[in-house]
Formats: sequence, C-alpha cells, structure tokens
Amino acid sequence: MAEVRQARPVIPDARYGARLAQAQALLADRNVRALLVGVGADLRYLTGYVAMPLERLTMLVLPARGRPALVAPRLEAMAAARSPAVRSGQVPVTPWDETDDAHALVASLLAEAPGPAVGAGDLVLVSDRLWAMHVLGLERVLPGASFGLASDVLRELRMPKDADEIELMRLAAHAADRVVAQIAAGRLVGRTEADVSGEVRERLLAEGHEAAEFAIVASGPNSASPHHNAGDRVIEAGEPIVLDIGGSLDGYCSDTTRTLWVTGGDASKGPTPEFRRLFDLLREAQAQASAAVRPGVSCERIDAVARDIITAGGHGPDFFHRVGHGIGLETHEEPYLVAGNGEPL
Amino acid sequence: MAEVRQARPVIPDARYGARLAQAQALLADRNVRALLVGVGADLRYLTGYVAMPLERLTMLVLPARGRPALVAPRLEAMAAARSPAVRSGQVPVTPWDETDDAHALVASLLAEAPGPAVGAGDLVLVSDRLWAMHVLGLERVLPGASFGLASDVLRELRMPKDADEIELMRLAAHAADRVVAQIAAGRLVGRTEADVSGEVRERLLAEGHEAAEFAIVASGPNSASPHHNAGDRVIEAGEPIVLDIGGSLDGYCSDTTRTLWVTGGDASKGPTPEFRRLFDLLREAQAQASAAVRPGVSCERIDAVARDIITAGGHGPDFFHRVGHGIGLETHEEPYLVAGNGEPL
Repeated sequence: MAEVRQARPVIPDARYGARLAQAQALLADRNVRALLVGVGADLRYLTGYVAMPLERLTMLVLPARGRPALVAPRLEAMAAARSPAVRSGQVPVTPWDETDDAHALVASLLAEAPGPAVGAGDLVLVSDRLWAMHVLGLERVLPGASFGLASDVLRELRMPKDADEIELMRLAAHAADRVVAQIAAGRLVGRTEADVSGEVRERLLAEGHEAAEFAIVASGPNSASPHHNAGDRVIEAGEPIVLDIGGSLDGYCSDTTRTLWVTGGDASKGPTPEFRRLFDLLREAQAQASAAVRPGVSCERIDAVARDIITAGGHGPDFFHRVGHGIGLETHEEPYLVAGNGEPL
Repeated sequence: MAEVRQARPVIPDARYGARLAQAQALLADRNVRALLVGVGADLRYLTGYVAMPLERLTMLVLPARGRPALVAPRLEAMAAARSPAVRSGQVPVTPWDETDDAHALVASLLAEAPGPAVGAGDLVLVSDRLWAMHVLGLERVLPGASFGLASDVLRELRMPKDADEIELMRLAAHAADRVVAQIAAGRLVGRTEADVSGEVRERLLAEGHEAAEFAIVASGPNSASPHHNAGDRVIEAGEPIVLDIGGSLDGYCSDTTRTLWVTGGDASKGPTPEFRRLFDLLREAQAQASAAVRPGVSCERIDAVARDIITAGGHGPDFFHRVGHGIGLETHEEPYLVAGNGEPL
C-alpha cells in the first residue's frame, strides 16, 4: 500500500486555459460556432470541474471566438466557483435559478459572442454524453442550427496524453494490478462471484481509486460473457474466472482484465488441455497485436493482427468484440481499435 | 445491522410485462409512435435490465403497437438475456456486432412494427438521459421524426410507487438514516470533510446499499453550499456540518440531508443563537410544508408554503432551491416541488 500515498501530479490551473484555447482554435478552424459541454469527462478536461450528474443543467459554453462561460444551477455555483478554471479567473460562472430556462440562458450567452447569431445550418457541437433532455432543449432554443458531437474536435486534444495524465493513468493501472494480485492470492473456492466482486471494489478504493466503477467476476461458464454481472454463482476449483475491474484515480481510469484458473490449492484441479490451448491462442494474439503497435499503424490493423491469429486458430466467430479501446478520463474513449477505423496511431 | 439482511421484495418478472403494456397503451393514446429507452432507470423500470453505461448502444425499442425488442451489443447479449423481462420471454434480445450501425438497427426494428413507417412529424420519445451520441444517431436514421422525452409518458407510470417499490425505498431510506446516526455518534472534530465522506460511503455499503452515489460533508462556511464537494477542510468544534448522502439499494435511491452542530463533547461549543434561529425557521418551514402534503394539492403549493415562512423570516433570497423532488429509481425524479409546477399530488 506504500504506493497509494505517493505524490500524485496535479494538473496545473494554467493547463485548462491552454486546453480551452486549443479547443477554440479547432472550432474556428472547422467552422464550428460553439462547443456546449455538459457534466462529464469533457468538462473535467477543459475546466477541472467535477460536477454532480443531476438533471439541472451545468454547461461550459465555449464559442469559437470570445469568452467561455460556465452555466451552473445557483445551488452549485459555489462548487463551480472552486473549480480550477473558475477560481483562476479563466472562466466565469453564470448561475441560473430554479425557475429559469437554462437552455435559453445558453442561447443568450452564445448570442453575446462575437460574430453573427447562430442561425440556420450553423454547426454547434455538444458533448457526446449530454443527456437527451438537454440536447432536445438546446435544439429548441437554437432552431435551424446543425448539431454534432464534441468528440469530433476534442478527440484530437484528449487522445494524446501529457506527462501528468500518463502518470495518473500509470498510478490507476498499477493500483488495479495490485488488486488482481491480491484477489488471485486470496481464497476464491466456495465464494460467490458477488462476494468477490465486493472485495474487488473495496480493494480498488483501498489502493487509491476514488471510485470503483466496475468489478466483473465471471466464473466457469459465465467467463464466456465479457460483461457479466457478478451474481450468486459459487466459484469452484477446476474452472476459470475472468476479472474485469476498474475505477478512477483523480479522474483517470483503470480497466484491467485478467483470466485466472482456480485450483484451490489442489494440483489435480489445474487447467484443462483445452483451456491451455485457448489461453495460449489468446496470449499469442495479444502479444502479436501489442508488438504491432507503432506510430502510423492504423487502429484497424491492430485489431486485424489479433483477429487473424484467432481466426486461424478456429475461433474467429467467438472473438466478437474489438481488440481494444483508448482510456483516460473515460474508461472507453477514442481511439477504438476496431475494423473500419483507419485512424493512424 | 440486523435490518440489512432482512428479506427484500423482488419485483416479479410479470410486473415488467405489465409496465410494458401500460407504456404501450399510453403511447397509443398520445399518438406517439415509439419509445426508445437507453441504459438507466427507465430501462430498469421497464425490463429489470441493469446495463453498463458504456458507449455501445443498449436500447429497448418499444413501438406503440407490436413486440418490444432489446437491442444490445453482442458482448453484452448474454447479460441482457438474463434480465427479468428477457429471461421470462417477454422481450427478445437483438444483438449487434462491433461494426454494425446500431442506430440503423433500431430504425429497422421500428420499420417492422405494425402500421406505416415512422415519417415526417411522427413523434418518437427517447429516454431523458440518453446520450447525445445516440440522440443525434437516431435523428439521423429517423429523418423528419419529431423527438420528445420519455418522461412525458413514463412519469405517469413511475411517479406512483407500488408496494414493493415503497418497501425498497423504505429500506434504502432507513439505511441512510442509520448512517447519519453512526456519523453523528462518532468523532468529527479534527477530521477532514473528505475523510468523513469516505466513512459515509463505506457505511452506506455496509448498511445494504449496492452503490454510494454521493456523500456530501460540508462544514462551517461550506455548509452554505448545498452541493459542496467534500474537501480538505478540517472540521472543528463549534460549527455546523451538513450531511447530504445517498445511494441505491436494489436500484431504489436514498437521499437524506441532515444539519448537525459539532460540539466535540464541549458544552461551551454549542449552537450559537443565530444558528438556532435559522435552524428553527427551517424546521418550521419543513414541518408546515410536510403538513400541507395531501392528495390534490399542487407541487408548487408545497414549495410556496415553505418559501412563505422563510421569506417572512427574512431569508427568502437565501432559499435559492426548490423545496423538494420525487425519488425512486433515480435520486431526483418527478414530481418536482417547485414554483410553476401545477401538478396535483
């Protein structure tokens, strides 16, 4: 546990200003009029503000030119004021009251930005995970505008990680690795998946995560279901379990999947020859795909390297998910390593 | 802790079918062509399926007439198949593969429903918290359709709670009450808000919640910020703290706010006269508002009863939030007790 207390990098306030400026430059370059960012990873990336995911609108309004503004419900205005980009004077808070029309407030802030009013055909981007209640509300107050997704612009900023982000991701990943090692070293036989899942969540927190987002424990036949919900099945000796666990540490995510074989200390309950063959095939595909990762190689090529090996081994139809995904402030984020994605690494 | 293990009601499988039928009847009645429900409380309410909130589309497609379908990514098809409405044969799963267009799949399922194709001006409802990436994707594959929010229909089903729901909410609320009592009985002086917040989260889980969603601990001047983020401030004797804590128990939410005064066992550090005056004013407003709750009284009337008392006490401008909100599968849900909401209880 010594590593838990080690110094963590803190994203400096000025970096939020730099990210906002980069985002505005991309908006202007792409002829996008504004970026409207609700609660979530994009908001944290651009302002450092970690807002509660509630029904009242919290929204960063970032026009292509002019000042940004952070729209927040009045009862969260004090919390918003303490966020890095606000307390450092880079983004002002515009509070709204319970009976105000928050979407109309966003439109009025956009109307104050330099240039003509947002009109028919003008492109406005909203954060990818903005809730429908707000998407439809914004469509109502910006009639005729064309709506797109923030990731079209922000992906370019969020895909490459700076040194502080890499360090936080390293800390999160190592914490998850320690949890896997602790679970593997403990007793599993005779316990339910749900019980082990609870232990995983506790250990993720004990190892420095602020949230344990998922703790998949899939035993025996359940291990064939990649996103199994840990349940009442009792783990036995002589069967595999899949752990797929993760959470966040200062906002940066871990996501670690490991396949274990449970012997319960009984050497006669070791992996079957069929399991060994499948596991070796998977390891080979993983190793070859990892070895193929270099600058300029396309995302779909990495997927194909793994898929070709598994298909040659006779299990192509069983490999029904992409080979991988990006990670950062979200567990899954771009780039996605999937057929059809020609994006070069 | 005895109560934690007491029998909890289980929503019977047949109830999901009944809810689906009620929803379809409302859709037909309102001339809505279909309800499209993503991951979240609405999906759990209608099918019992608790899906992971990831970027791949999971969606209940419920036409006003005809069979429902549950669209799920193939790697979650096994998890979806175990959900109550699916395993009981009431909703079939339609899986999609990694390179499929999941939104187009939803449109094709709608096209199979009885009646004419969804066309210009036809009303389609999406779940209120569906992510923008899916809202815009559905708008693309259903050009001309008019989009609205699922709550316009589902509010009528979800606002009144049945006996099983009430029992689960009771269990969740009592668990949160026990946590408040435990925190109040323990040491507070000299600890940071964040430390106490961590203890609240652990205790919510220990008392039977499956998730601790929020654990606001706001001390001294921070207690004026309703949605304060618990931080490094050290709690002292002779000041107030606000606890606003909650989570979910079998999906049903707790949300309990209590204002405490910290003495640290030193009687000379008791509440100030000014604090007592404010606290008594608040208690009076709460008591009168609670007493005003009866069938047929409007939501805004309850808010006004409390507001009039606080305004008469000279603190109207400080009471900048609505008096209350509904609760159930979401922490905040309709009905909202706020000026402008004439809905009768």
